Amino acid sequence: MSLTLVASNRAFGGTQFVYRHASSATSTDMQFATYLPPQAEHGPCPALIFLSGLTCSEENATVKAGYQRVAAELGMIVIAPDTSPRGEDVANDERYFLGQAASFYLDATQKPWATHFQMERYITQDLYDLVLEKLPVQADKIGITGHSMGGHGALTLAMRHPELFASLSAFAPVVAPSQVEWGQVAFSAYLGDDQAAWAEHDACALVQSRGWKADMLIDQGDADAFLETNLRTPLFEAACQAAGQAATIRYQPGYDHSYYFVASFIEEHMRWHAARLG
Amino acid sequence: MSLTLVASNRAFGGTQFVYRHASSATSTDMQFATYLPPQAEHGPCPALIFLSGLTCSEENATVKAGYQRVAAELGMIVIAPDTSPRGEDVANDERYFLGQAASFYLDATQKPWATHFQMERYITQDLYDLVLEKLPVQADKIGITGHSMGGHGALTLAMRHPELFASLSAFAPVVAPSQVEWGQVAFSAYLGDDQAAWAEHDACALVQSRGWKADMLIDQGDADAFLETNLRTPLFEAACQAAGQAATIRYQPGYDHSYYFVASFIEEHMRWHAARLG
Repeated sequence: MSLTLVASNRAFGGTQFVYRHASSATSTDMQFATYLPPQAEHGPCPALIFLSGLTCSEENATVKAGYQRVAAELGMIVIAPDTSPRGEDVANDERYFLGQAASFYLDATQKPWATHFQMERYITQDLYDLVLEKLPVQADKIGITGHSMGGHGALTLAMRHPELFASLSAFAPVVAPSQVEWGQVAFSAYLGDDQAAWAEHDACALVQSRGWKADMLIDQGDADAFLETNLRTPLFEAACQAAGQAATIRYQPGYDHSYYFVASFIEEHMRWHAARLG
Repeated sequence: MSLTLVASNRAFGGTQFVYRHASSATSTDMQFATYLPPQAEHGPCPALIFLSGLTCSEENATVKAGYQRVAAELGMIVIAPDTSPRGEDVANDERYFLGQAASFYLDATQKPWATHFQMERYITQDLYDLVLEKLPVQADKIGITGHSMGGHGALTLAMRHPELFASLSAFAPVVAPSQVEWGQVAFSAYLGDDQAAWAEHDACALVQSRGWKADMLIDQGDADAFLETNLRTPLFEAACQAAGQAATIRYQPGYDHSYYFVASFIEEHMRWHAARLG
Protein backbone atom coordinates (compact mmCIF):
# COMPACT_ATOMS: atom_id res chain seq x y z
CA MET A 1 0.00 0.00 0.00
CA SER A 2 1.18 3.51 -0.70
CA LEU A 3 0.73 6.65 1.34
CA THR A 4 -0.24 10.04 -0.05
CA LEU A 5 0.96 12.98 2.02
CA VAL A 6 -1.91 15.34 2.90
CA ALA A 7 -0.18 17.64 5.38
CA SER A 8 3.11 18.01 7.15
CA ASN A 9 3.85 20.43 9.99
CA ARG A 10 6.94 20.72 12.12
CA ALA A 11 5.98 20.43 15.79
CA PHE A 12 8.11 20.13 18.92
CA GLY A 13 11.17 19.11 16.94
CA GLY A 14 9.33 16.30 15.15
CA THR A 15 6.72 16.32 12.42
CA GLN A 16 2.95 16.04 12.41
CA PHE A 17 1.85 14.24 9.24
CA VAL A 18 -1.55 13.50 7.74
CA TYR A 19 -1.61 10.69 5.18
CA ARG A 20 -4.23 9.24 2.86
CA HIS A 21 -4.28 5.71 1.51
CA ALA A 22 -6.57 3.14 -0.08
CA SER A 23 -8.09 0.67 2.36
CA SER A 24 -9.16 -2.78 1.24
CA ALA A 25 -11.15 -3.17 4.46
CA THR A 26 -13.40 -0.16 3.93
CA SER A 27 -13.09 -0.08 0.11
CA THR A 28 -12.54 3.67 0.43
CA ASP A 29 -9.62 5.97 0.86
CA MET A 30 -8.84 6.51 4.52
CA GLN A 31 -6.92 9.28 6.26
CA PHE A 32 -4.85 9.22 9.42
CA ALA A 33 -2.63 11.61 11.34
CA THR A 34 0.70 10.53 12.74
CA TYR A 35 3.25 12.40 14.80
CA LEU A 36 6.85 11.32 14.43
CA PRO A 37 8.99 12.52 17.33
CA PRO A 38 12.63 13.57 16.80
CA GLN A 39 13.77 10.17 18.07
CA ALA A 40 12.09 8.47 15.09
CA GLU A 41 14.85 9.85 12.85
CA HIS A 42 17.32 7.59 14.61
CA GLY A 43 15.40 4.34 14.87
CA PRO A 44 12.09 2.65 15.62
CA CYS A 45 9.96 3.96 18.48
CA PRO A 46 7.00 2.68 20.48
CA ALA A 47 3.65 3.90 19.20
CA LEU A 48 0.26 4.84 20.59
CA ILE A 49 -2.93 4.64 18.54
CA PHE A 50 -5.53 7.26 19.55
CA LEU A 51 -9.11 6.51 18.46
CA SER A 52 -11.50 9.46 18.42
CA GLY A 53 -15.20 9.50 19.15
CA LEU A 54 -18.55 10.14 17.51
CA THR A 55 -18.63 13.12 15.12
CA CYS A 56 -14.82 13.28 15.04
CA SER A 57 -12.08 12.71 12.50
CA GLU A 58 -8.33 12.25 12.87
CA GLU A 59 -8.11 16.01 13.33
CA ASN A 60 -9.74 16.48 16.74
CA ALA A 61 -7.13 14.79 18.89
CA THR A 62 -4.33 15.93 16.63
CA VAL A 63 -5.22 19.60 16.94
CA LYS A 64 -6.66 19.68 20.46
CA ALA A 65 -5.13 16.98 22.67
CA GLY A 66 -1.60 18.36 22.77
CA TYR A 67 -0.02 14.92 22.36
CA GLN A 68 2.90 16.13 20.23
CA ARG A 69 4.79 17.75 23.12
CA VAL A 70 4.70 14.63 25.26
CA ALA A 71 5.44 12.36 22.29
CA ALA A 72 8.55 14.43 21.50
CA GLU A 73 9.73 14.07 25.06
CA LEU A 74 9.04 10.35 25.32
CA GLY A 75 10.09 9.38 21.81
CA MET A 76 6.65 7.98 21.07
CA ILE A 77 4.92 7.84 17.70
CA VAL A 78 1.22 8.74 17.82
CA ILE A 79 -1.25 7.50 15.21
CA ALA A 80 -4.74 9.04 15.06
CA PRO A 81 -6.96 7.44 12.43
CA ASP A 82 -10.17 8.81 11.00
CA THR A 83 -13.25 7.39 12.69
CA SER A 84 -15.18 5.91 9.76
CA PRO A 85 -15.23 5.47 6.00
CA ARG A 86 -16.49 8.56 4.19
CA GLY A 87 -17.71 9.50 0.73
CA GLU A 88 -20.78 10.06 -1.38
CA ASP A 89 -21.05 6.34 -2.07
CA VAL A 90 -20.80 5.42 1.60
CA ALA A 91 -24.00 4.78 3.58
CA ASN A 92 -24.91 7.46 6.08
CA ASP A 93 -27.52 8.50 8.61
CA GLU A 94 -28.55 11.82 10.08
CA ARG A 95 -28.16 10.56 13.62
CA TYR A 96 -24.74 11.36 15.08
CA PHE A 97 -24.20 7.80 16.34
CA LEU A 98 -24.64 6.04 13.00
CA GLY A 99 -22.83 6.16 9.67
CA GLN A 100 -20.07 8.50 8.58
CA ALA A 101 -18.05 10.03 11.44
CA ALA A 102 -19.67 7.66 13.93
CA SER A 103 -16.76 5.78 15.40
CA PHE A 104 -17.95 2.22 15.89
CA TYR A 105 -14.78 0.15 15.56
CA LEU A 106 -16.45 -3.06 14.35
CA ASP A 107 -17.11 -4.87 11.07
CA ALA A 108 -20.73 -4.39 10.06
CA THR A 109 -22.54 -7.48 8.82
CA GLN A 110 -25.82 -5.82 7.78
CA LYS A 111 -26.87 -3.87 4.70
CA PRO A 112 -26.20 -1.12 3.79
CA TRP A 113 -23.37 -0.79 6.31
CA ALA A 114 -21.36 -3.94 5.60
CA THR A 115 -20.01 -2.61 2.29
CA HIS A 116 -17.74 0.00 3.84
CA PHE A 117 -18.09 -0.04 7.63
CA GLN A 118 -15.31 -2.52 8.37
CA MET A 119 -13.49 -0.42 10.92
CA GLU A 120 -12.20 -3.26 13.09
CA ARG A 121 -10.49 -4.80 10.09
CA TYR A 122 -9.32 -1.36 9.02
CA ILE A 123 -7.61 -0.59 12.33
CA THR A 124 -6.27 -4.04 13.15
CA GLN A 125 -5.18 -5.07 9.64
CA ASP A 126 -4.96 -2.29 7.04
CA LEU A 127 -3.76 0.51 9.25
CA TYR A 128 -1.80 -1.72 11.60
CA ASP A 129 0.13 -3.37 8.75
CA LEU A 130 0.62 -0.05 6.98
CA VAL A 131 2.06 1.55 10.08
CA LEU A 132 4.49 -1.32 10.59
CA GLU A 133 5.54 -1.18 6.96
CA LYS A 134 5.82 2.57 6.49
CA LEU A 135 6.60 4.10 9.88
CA PRO A 136 9.53 3.42 12.23
CA VAL A 137 7.31 1.64 14.75
CA GLN A 138 8.51 -1.09 17.10
CA ALA A 139 6.18 -4.00 16.27
CA ASP A 140 5.74 -5.31 19.80
CA LYS A 141 5.38 -1.87 21.38
CA ILE A 142 2.06 -0.52 20.20
CA GLY A 143 -0.44 0.79 22.74
CA ILE A 144 -4.00 1.92 22.17
CA THR A 145 -6.18 4.61 23.72
CA GLY A 146 -9.15 6.69 22.71
CA HIS A 147 -11.82 9.16 23.74
CA SER A 148 -15.55 8.52 24.19
CA MET A 149 -16.69 6.08 21.47
CA GLY A 150 -12.99 5.91 20.55
CA GLY A 151 -12.29 4.90 24.13
CA HIS A 152 -14.77 2.09 23.63
CA GLY A 153 -12.93 1.20 20.42
CA ALA A 154 -9.65 1.04 22.33
CA LEU A 155 -11.14 -1.21 25.01
CA THR A 156 -12.87 -3.58 22.61
CA LEU A 157 -10.09 -3.81 20.01
CA ALA A 158 -7.48 -4.44 22.71
CA MET A 159 -9.53 -7.17 24.35
CA ARG A 160 -10.34 -8.77 20.97
CA HIS A 161 -6.76 -8.51 19.65
CA PRO A 162 -4.44 -8.74 22.66
CA GLU A 163 -1.60 -9.93 20.43
CA LEU A 164 -1.59 -6.55 18.66
CA PHE A 165 -1.54 -4.18 21.62
CA ALA A 166 0.82 -3.96 24.58
CA SER A 167 -0.93 -1.29 26.63
CA LEU A 168 -4.46 0.08 27.00
CA SER A 169 -6.09 3.20 28.35
CA ALA A 170 -9.19 5.30 27.65
CA PHE A 171 -10.60 8.80 28.19
CA ALA A 172 -14.27 8.98 29.11
CA PRO A 173 -15.08 5.80 27.21
CA VAL A 174 -18.45 4.46 26.26
CA VAL A 175 -18.45 1.10 28.05
CA ALA A 176 -21.80 -0.57 27.43
CA PRO A 177 -23.45 0.24 24.09
CA SER A 178 -25.67 -2.81 24.54
CA GLN A 179 -27.22 -1.17 27.58
CA VAL A 180 -28.01 2.29 26.17
CA GLU A 181 -30.72 3.00 23.64
CA TRP A 182 -28.60 4.69 20.97
CA GLY A 183 -26.05 1.89 21.21
CA GLN A 184 -28.77 -0.70 20.71
CA VAL A 185 -29.99 1.14 17.62
CA ALA A 186 -26.45 1.24 16.20
CA PHE A 187 -25.66 -2.39 17.04
CA SER A 188 -28.94 -3.48 15.40
CA ALA A 189 -28.07 -1.52 12.29
CA TYR A 190 -24.50 -2.78 12.03
CA LEU A 191 -24.78 -6.30 13.46
CA GLY A 192 -28.45 -7.26 13.32
CA ASP A 193 -30.49 -8.45 16.26
CA ASP A 194 -28.26 -11.28 17.49
CA GLN A 195 -27.20 -10.09 20.91
CA ALA A 196 -24.37 -12.62 20.99
CA ALA A 197 -22.80 -10.59 18.18
CA TRP A 198 -23.30 -7.40 20.19
CA ALA A 199 -21.53 -8.94 23.17
CA GLU A 200 -18.41 -9.38 21.04
CA HIS A 201 -18.25 -5.59 20.63
CA ASP A 202 -19.40 -4.37 24.02
CA ALA A 203 -16.67 -3.47 26.51
CA CYS A 204 -18.60 -4.56 29.60
CA ALA A 205 -19.43 -7.91 28.01
CA LEU A 206 -15.88 -8.40 26.73
CA VAL A 207 -14.22 -7.69 30.05
CA GLN A 208 -16.20 -10.61 31.44
CA SER A 209 -15.86 -12.97 28.45
CA ARG A 210 -12.27 -12.26 27.45
CA GLY A 211 -10.75 -9.68 29.79
CA TRP A 212 -7.56 -7.78 29.13
CA LYS A 213 -4.18 -9.34 29.72
CA ALA A 214 -2.78 -6.53 31.86
CA ASP A 215 -3.85 -3.40 33.74
CA MET A 216 -5.65 -0.50 32.13
CA LEU A 217 -6.07 3.22 32.92
CA ILE A 218 -9.38 5.05 32.51
CA ASP A 219 -10.04 8.71 33.30
CA GLN A 220 -13.57 10.04 33.45
CA GLY A 221 -14.67 13.59 34.25
CA ASP A 222 -17.31 13.66 36.97
CA ALA A 223 -18.98 16.71 35.36
CA ASP A 224 -19.25 14.94 32.00
CA ALA A 225 -22.79 15.57 30.70
CA PHE A 226 -22.80 12.16 29.01
CA LEU A 227 -21.67 10.18 32.05
CA GLU A 228 -25.01 8.95 33.33
CA THR A 229 -26.91 8.62 30.07
CA ASN A 230 -24.34 7.43 27.53
CA LEU A 231 -21.03 6.46 29.12
CA ARG A 232 -22.15 4.59 32.24
CA THR A 233 -18.65 4.17 33.67
CA PRO A 234 -19.90 2.47 36.87
CA LEU A 235 -21.12 -0.45 34.74
CA PHE A 236 -17.54 -1.04 33.64
CA GLU A 237 -16.22 -0.71 37.17
CA ALA A 238 -18.69 -3.37 38.26
CA ALA A 239 -17.82 -5.60 35.30
CA CYS A 240 -14.09 -5.33 36.09
CA GLN A 241 -14.72 -6.17 39.74
CA ALA A 242 -16.88 -9.13 38.84
CA ALA A 243 -14.27 -10.41 36.38
CA GLY A 244 -11.24 -9.68 38.55
CA GLN A 245 -9.92 -7.36 35.85
CA ALA A 246 -7.14 -4.98 36.90
CA ALA A 247 -8.26 -1.46 36.04
CA THR A 248 -7.47 1.98 37.42
CA ILE A 249 -10.64 4.01 36.91
CA ARG A 250 -10.36 7.60 38.07
CA TYR A 251 -13.11 10.20 38.33
CA GLN A 252 -11.62 13.62 37.70
CA PRO A 253 -13.50 16.31 39.60
CA GLY A 254 -15.07 19.10 37.55
CA TYR A 255 -14.00 17.80 34.14
CA ASP A 256 -16.43 17.49 31.24
CA HIS A 257 -16.37 15.49 27.99
CA SER A 258 -14.35 17.98 25.93
CA TYR A 259 -10.84 17.83 24.58
CA TYR A 260 -9.83 20.20 27.40
CA PHE A 261 -10.32 17.12 29.59
CA VAL A 262 -8.31 14.93 27.23
CA ALA A 263 -5.53 17.53 27.00
CA SER A 264 -5.40 17.80 30.79
CA PHE A 265 -4.64 14.08 31.20
CA ILE A 266 -2.96 13.09 27.94
CA GLU A 267 0.49 13.44 29.49
CA GLU A 268 -0.34 11.04 32.32
CA HIS A 269 -1.76 8.53 29.85
CA MET A 270 1.23 8.76 27.54
CA ARG A 271 3.68 8.30 30.43
CA TRP A 272 1.58 5.37 31.59
CA HIS A 273 1.81 3.78 28.13
CA ALA A 274 5.52 4.60 27.83
CA ALA A 275 6.21 2.81 31.11
CA ARG A 276 4.52 -0.33 29.73
CA LEU A 277 5.88 -0.11 26.18
CA GLY A 278 9.40 0.31 27.50
CA MET B 1 -19.95 46.31 32.05
CA SER B 2 -21.32 42.83 32.58
CA LEU B 3 -20.05 39.52 31.31
CA THR B 4 -22.20 36.77 29.84
CA LEU B 5 -20.76 33.29 30.20
CA VAL B 6 -20.59 31.48 26.85
CA ALA B 7 -18.58 28.41 27.80
CA SER B 8 -16.72 26.98 30.77
CA ASN B 9 -14.43 23.94 30.70
CA ARG B 10 -12.23 22.57 33.43
CA ALA B 11 -8.65 22.32 32.16
CA PHE B 12 -5.41 21.51 33.96
CA GLY B 13 -6.93 22.22 37.37
CA GLY B 14 -8.16 25.67 36.30
CA THR B 15 -11.01 26.76 34.05
CA GLN B 16 -11.17 27.85 30.43
CA PHE B 17 -13.93 30.44 30.05
CA VAL B 18 -15.45 32.18 27.04
CA TYR B 19 -17.33 35.39 27.81
CA ARG B 20 -19.44 37.80 25.80
CA HIS B 21 -19.97 41.47 26.59
CA ALA B 22 -21.11 44.74 25.04
CA SER B 23 -18.29 46.94 23.78
CA SER B 24 -18.70 50.69 23.55
CA ALA B 25 -15.60 50.86 21.34
CA THR B 26 -16.91 48.56 18.61
CA SER B 27 -20.62 49.18 19.29
CA THR B 28 -21.10 45.42 19.07
CA ASP B 29 -21.01 42.50 21.42
CA MET B 30 -17.51 41.08 21.67
CA GLN B 31 -16.31 37.67 22.82
CA PHE B 32 -13.09 36.64 24.51
CA ALA B 33 -11.60 33.49 25.99
CA THR B 34 -9.79 33.52 29.30
CA TYR B 35 -8.04 30.78 31.19
CA LEU B 36 -7.95 31.11 34.97
CA PRO B 37 -5.26 28.92 36.50
CA PRO B 38 -5.78 27.22 39.89
CA GLN B 39 -3.72 29.98 41.55
CA ALA B 40 -6.36 32.57 40.57
CA GLU B 41 -8.67 31.10 43.21
CA HIS B 42 -6.31 32.37 45.89
CA GLY B 43 -5.46 35.86 44.63
CA PRO B 44 -4.58 38.03 41.65
CA CYS B 45 -2.21 36.66 39.02
CA PRO B 46 -0.17 38.13 36.18
CA ALA B 47 -1.89 37.95 32.81
CA LEU B 48 -0.94 37.49 29.18
CA ILE B 49 -3.08 38.79 26.32
CA PHE B 50 -2.84 36.65 23.16
CA LEU B 51 -3.95 38.35 19.93
CA SER B 52 -4.77 36.07 17.01
CA GLY B 53 -4.31 36.69 13.32
CA LEU B 54 -6.24 37.13 10.11
CA THR B 55 -9.24 34.76 9.70
CA CYS B 56 -9.11 33.81 13.39
CA SER B 57 -11.29 34.28 16.43
CA GLU B 58 -10.60 33.82 20.14
CA GLU B 59 -10.96 30.09 19.56
CA ASN B 60 -7.84 29.32 17.52
CA ALA B 61 -5.21 29.94 20.17
CA THR B 62 -7.49 28.68 22.92
CA VAL B 63 -8.04 25.31 21.28
CA LYS B 64 -4.72 24.85 19.49
CA ALA B 65 -1.88 26.65 21.29
CA GLY B 66 -1.89 24.56 24.45
CA TYR B 67 -1.43 27.59 26.71
CA GLN B 68 -3.58 26.20 29.54
CA ARG B 69 -1.00 23.67 30.75
CA VAL B 70 1.74 26.25 31.06
CA ALA B 71 -0.60 28.85 32.55
CA ALA B 72 -1.63 26.36 35.24
CA GLU B 73 1.99 25.73 36.10
CA LEU B 74 3.00 29.40 36.12
CA GLY B 75 -0.13 30.80 37.73
CA MET B 76 -0.76 33.03 34.73
CA ILE B 77 -4.12 34.18 33.42
CA VAL B 78 -4.42 34.11 29.62
CA ILE B 79 -6.85 36.35 27.73
CA ALA B 80 -7.54 35.66 24.05
CA PRO B 81 -9.89 38.22 22.48
CA ASP B 82 -11.78 37.87 19.24
CA THR B 83 -10.03 39.57 16.33
CA SER B 84 -12.67 41.98 15.05
CA PRO B 85 -16.23 43.17 15.48
CA ARG B 86 -18.75 40.85 13.84
CA GLY B 87 -22.40 40.90 12.84
CA GLU B 88 -24.78 41.45 9.97
CA ASP B 89 -24.66 45.22 10.51
CA VAL B 90 -20.85 45.29 10.54
CA ALA B 91 -18.99 46.21 7.34
CA ASN B 92 -17.20 43.34 5.65
CA ASP B 93 -15.11 42.41 2.64
CA GLU B 94 -14.46 39.17 0.82
CA ARG B 95 -10.72 39.58 1.07
CA TYR B 96 -9.25 37.80 4.10
CA PHE B 97 -7.24 40.82 5.20
CA LEU B 98 -10.13 43.27 5.47
CA GLY B 99 -13.29 43.42 7.56
CA GLN B 100 -14.68 40.80 9.89
CA ALA B 101 -12.11 38.34 11.27
CA ALA B 102 -9.26 40.46 9.89
CA SER B 103 -7.24 41.33 12.95
CA PHE B 104 -6.07 44.90 12.45
CA TYR B 105 -5.74 46.26 15.97
CA LEU B 106 -6.33 49.93 15.12
CA ASP B 107 -9.18 52.45 15.18
CA ALA B 108 -10.48 52.97 11.65
CA THR B 109 -11.14 56.57 10.63
CA GLN B 110 -12.71 55.90 7.23
CA LYS B 111 -16.19 54.88 6.13
CA PRO B 112 -17.64 52.29 6.34
CA TRP B 113 -15.09 50.86 8.77
CA ALA B 114 -14.96 53.57 11.42
CA THR B 115 -18.40 52.68 12.83
CA HIS B 116 -17.32 49.38 14.37
CA PHE B 117 -13.63 48.74 13.62
CA GLN B 118 -12.20 50.34 16.76
CA MET B 119 -10.06 47.44 17.83
CA GLU B 120 -7.26 49.44 19.43
CA ARG B 121 -9.73 51.14 21.72
CA TYR B 122 -11.45 47.82 22.29
CA ILE B 123 -8.29 46.05 23.45
CA THR B 124 -6.65 48.91 25.35
CA GLN B 125 -9.78 50.33 26.97
CA ASP B 126 -12.91 48.16 26.93
CA LEU B 127 -11.29 44.77 27.31
CA TYR B 128 -8.40 46.01 29.41
CA ASP B 129 -10.70 47.73 31.91
CA LEU B 130 -13.11 44.83 31.92
CA VAL B 131 -10.35 42.36 32.69
CA LEU B 132 -9.09 44.46 35.57
CA GLU B 133 -12.59 44.83 36.95
CA LYS B 134 -13.84 41.29 36.53
CA LEU B 135 -10.82 38.98 36.62
CA PRO B 136 -8.21 38.51 39.37
CA VAL B 137 -5.50 40.20 37.29
CA GLN B 138 -2.53 42.08 38.75
CA ALA B 139 -2.86 45.52 37.15
CA ASP B 140 0.83 46.17 36.59
CA LYS B 141 1.60 42.65 35.41
CA ILE B 142 -0.05 42.32 32.02
CA GLY B 143 1.98 41.10 29.06
CA ILE B 144 0.97 40.91 25.42
CA THR B 145 1.75 38.50 22.61
CA GLY B 146 0.15 37.34 19.39
CA HIS B 147 0.45 35.36 16.20
CA SER B 148 0.81 36.68 12.66
CA MET B 149 -1.39 39.81 12.32
CA GLY B 150 -2.03 39.36 16.05
CA GLY B 151 1.74 39.46 16.55
CA HIS B 152 1.70 42.79 14.74
CA GLY B 153 -1.11 43.87 17.05
CA ALA B 154 0.97 42.93 20.08
CA LEU B 155 3.98 44.87 18.78
CA THR B 156 2.04 48.00 17.83
CA LEU B 157 -0.26 48.14 20.85
CA ALA B 158 2.66 47.63 23.22
CA MET B 159 4.73 50.37 21.60
CA ARG B 160 1.73 52.73 21.49
CA HIS B 161 0.60 51.96 25.07
CA PRO B 162 3.73 51.08 27.05
CA GLU B 163 1.98 52.06 30.29
CA LEU B 164 -0.46 49.18 29.82
CA PHE B 165 1.92 46.32 29.09
CA ALA B 166 4.89 45.01 31.03
CA SER B 167 6.20 42.41 28.58
CA LEU B 168 6.05 41.81 24.84
CA SER B 169 6.58 38.90 22.48
CA ALA B 170 5.25 37.69 19.13
CA PHE B 171 4.93 34.56 17.00
CA ALA B 172 5.57 34.98 13.28
CA PRO B 173 4.35 38.59 13.33
CA VAL B 174 3.51 40.79 10.40
CA VAL B 175 5.99 43.65 10.88
CA ALA B 176 5.52 46.09 8.02
CA PRO B 177 2.00 46.33 6.60
CA SER B 178 2.96 49.65 4.99
CA GLN B 179 5.47 47.81 2.82
CA VAL B 180 3.30 44.96 1.53
CA GLU B 181 0.50 45.37 -0.98
CA TRP B 182 -2.33 43.84 1.04
CA GLY B 183 -1.31 45.91 4.05
CA GLN B 184 -1.42 49.06 1.97
CA VAL B 185 -4.90 48.19 0.75
CA ALA B 186 -6.09 47.60 4.31
CA PHE B 187 -4.43 50.74 5.71
CA SER B 188 -5.99 52.82 2.91
CA ALA B 189 -9.39 51.38 3.71
CA TYR B 190 -9.16 51.87 7.45
CA LEU B 191 -7.01 55.02 7.73
CA GLY B 192 -7.18 56.74 4.34
CA ASP B 193 -4.19 57.74 2.27
CA ASP B 194 -2.24 59.72 4.88
CA GLN B 195 0.91 57.67 5.31
CA ALA B 196 1.71 59.46 8.56
CA ALA B 197 -1.35 57.74 9.99
CA TRP B 198 -0.13 54.41 8.65
CA ALA B 199 3.22 54.90 10.39
CA GLU B 200 1.44 55.05 13.74
CA HIS B 201 0.23 51.49 13.18
CA ASP B 202 3.19 49.88 11.45
CA ALA B 203 5.59 47.94 13.68
CA CYS B 204 8.71 48.79 11.68
CA ALA B 205 7.85 52.49 11.71
CA LEU B 206 6.92 52.45 15.41
CA VAL B 207 10.11 50.76 16.53
CA GLN B 208 11.96 53.69 15.02
CA SER B 209 9.59 56.45 16.14
CA ARG B 210 8.67 55.20 19.61
CA GLY B 211 10.48 51.97 20.34
CA TRP B 212 9.63 49.58 23.15
CA LYS B 213 10.76 50.22 26.69
CA ALA B 214 12.32 46.78 27.25
CA ASP B 215 13.40 43.66 25.40
CA MET B 216 11.08 41.58 23.25
CA LEU B 217 11.03 37.98 22.02
CA ILE B 218 10.04 37.01 18.48
CA ASP B 219 9.96 33.49 17.03
CA GLN B 220 9.62 32.96 13.29
CA GLY B 221 9.54 29.67 11.42
CA ASP B 222 12.02 29.61 8.56
CA ALA B 223 9.69 27.38 6.50
CA ASP B 224 6.77 29.80 6.93
CA ALA B 225 5.16 30.22 3.50
CA PHE B 226 4.24 33.84 4.34
CA LEU B 227 7.70 34.86 5.50
CA GLU B 228 9.00 36.50 2.36
CA THR B 229 5.80 37.88 0.95
CA ASN B 230 3.74 38.97 3.93
CA LEU B 231 5.69 38.86 7.18
CA ARG B 232 9.07 40.28 6.15
CA THR B 233 10.78 39.63 9.48
CA PRO B 234 14.18 40.89 8.26
CA LEU B 235 12.67 44.37 7.86
CA PHE B 236 11.94 44.37 11.59
CA GLU B 237 15.39 43.07 12.44
CA ALA B 238 16.88 45.94 10.45
CA ALA B 239 14.53 48.48 12.05
CA CYS B 240 15.47 47.25 15.54
CA GLN B 241 19.17 47.46 14.72
CA ALA B 242 18.79 50.95 13.29
CA ALA B 243 16.84 52.10 16.35
CA GLY B 244 18.99 50.31 18.93
CA GLN B 245 15.93 48.33 20.04
CA ALA B 246 16.63 45.26 22.16
CA ALA B 247 14.96 42.29 20.46
CA THR B 248 15.59 38.56 20.41
CA ILE B 249 14.46 37.40 16.98
CA ARG B 250 14.82 33.67 16.42
CA TYR B 251 14.36 31.74 13.20
CA GLN B 252 13.09 28.27 14.04
CA PRO B 253 14.24 25.72 11.46
CA GLY B 254 11.54 23.84 9.59
CA TYR B 255 8.56 25.51 11.27
CA ASP B 256 5.65 26.91 9.27
CA HIS B 257 2.92 29.45 10.07
CA SER B 258 0.50 27.04 11.76
CA TYR B 259 -0.56 26.70 15.35
CA TYR B 260 1.73 23.66 15.57
CA PHE B 261 4.50 26.26 15.46
CA VAL B 262 2.80 28.40 18.12
CA ALA B 263 2.18 25.35 20.32
CA SER B 264 5.82 24.32 19.99
CA PHE B 265 7.09 27.61 21.43
CA ILE B 266 4.23 28.85 23.62
CA GLU B 267 5.88 27.46 26.75
CA GLU B 268 9.10 29.38 26.12
CA HIS B 269 7.16 32.57 25.49
CA MET B 270 5.05 32.16 28.60
CA ARG B 271 8.10 31.49 30.76
CA TRP B 272 9.74 34.53 29.19
CA HIS B 273 6.73 36.68 30.09
CA ALA B 274 6.49 35.16 33.57
CA ALA B 275 10.11 36.06 34.26
CA ARG B 276 9.35 39.69 33.38
CA LEU B 277 5.92 39.91 35.03
CA GLY B 278 7.35 38.50 38.25
